Amino acid sequence: MTTYGLLIFDGVEELDFQGPHSAFSISARMRDDGDTVLLLAERPDPITGERGMRVLPDHTLNDHPPLDVLLVPGGDAKTEVSNPVLVDWIQRTAATVDWVTSVCVGAFLLHEAGPARDRRVATHRLYEDRLEARGQITVVRDARYVVDGNLVTSQGVTGGIDLALWLIGRLHGRDHARAVRRHLQYDPAPPYLADEPLAHVAR
Amino acid sequence: MTTYGLLIFDGVEELDFQGPHSAFSISARMRDDGDTVLLLAERPDPITGERGMRVLPDHTLNDHPPLDVLLVPGGDAKTEVSNPVLVDWIQRTAATVDWVTSVCVGAFLLHEAGPARDRRVATHRLYEDRLEARGQITVVRDARYVVDGNLVTSQGVTGGIDLALWLIGRLHGRDHARAVRRHLQYDPAPPYLADEPLAHVAR
Repeated sequence: MTTYGLLIFDGVEELDFQGPHSAFSISARMRDDGDTVLLLAERPDPITGERGMRVLPDHTLNDHPPLDVLLVPGGDAKTEVSNPVLVDWIQRTAATVDWVTSVCVGAFLLHEAGPARDRRVATHRLYEDRLEARGQITVVRDARYVVDGNLVTSQGVTGGIDLALWLIGRLHGRDHARAVRRHLQYDPAPPYLADEPLAHVAR
Repeated sequence: MTTYGLLIFDGVEELDFQGPHSAFSISARMRDDGDTVLLLAERPDPITGERGMRVLPDHTLNDHPPLDVLLVPGGDAKTEVSNPVLVDWIQRTAATVDWVTSVCVGAFLLHEAGPARDRRVATHRLYEDRLEARGQITVVRDARYVVDGNLVTSQGVTGGIDLALWLIGRLHGRDHARAVRRHLQYDPAPPYLADEPLAHVAR
């Protein structure tokens, strides 16, 4: 039985937590073993993400069940490093969970709160220099996600999907992680990787 | 200026619309040209997705600006084919937009409402037979997304990200679509594609 806690806040980059939320939730449904996936916020009101999506949390930071996995997404995580409520909660919670994870610039919050100090991490490619300039951290620039002990951090936005699938496999086995990947139908085919003549055919 | 309308409903598979929402929204921010990305629902209350996430719509189906792109996600779309309000709205709206799109089993709603009749489509791999059994439709089983005239349909869940990036490139150019992909840092690295000894190193 695994309880996943995904932090959300105003200005969060939505897909940073929504990708892992789907992967963890599909895993929970397939395992039928009481796993739960919870969205946690400072207040019970809807948060508004960086792209304008309004999402309701399941619990507040003061009232949630014990967690096994903590996930810190990015977006305005860069400015939330100045929010003592979030930083204190992350610090306290990280000390009690089995796995501490971040997506994108969520690594800034994990650095501010402590868990990413003196560790190897990944972050969004545009913020690698800025994170490393904070000191006491090694940014790995050529890995989709980085596992350092019980700390797992991913590159930007969509990187959280790969991180979540890896962690699901670590917790519940590779075969199960592969089944979750198949249900997500995560066989990516990003367009425009080649530069070929456009076929602007008539409709 | 492009207005994207993403339909949401109780039981929607969250990531089906959340992936495209991020891609379209990041595109809008980068283009700085008044593009808007709207979540549309039958009622103004929060919807609850298949994985339990509660999301607020931006507009109801009776009160939204004209759309250029319609996106129909999956999840309980299979049962929503019996909801005349959604089906009628899709039928009317599809006739006014430039592009009609679906993700996952959203193709069932597009078939019920008409736009996918006698067309080539993609859907979630578990529902290909069932969709084809409805008749008057050709399911393409080995393509991530399928473009048939102004109808673009994708395979399950994460397929919507690739579909959205393709459409962004078709609307606003390949270079722009590539910039959006870089911002999403969509360089997928799904884990466990190989079967190698697990390194269960001590933390």
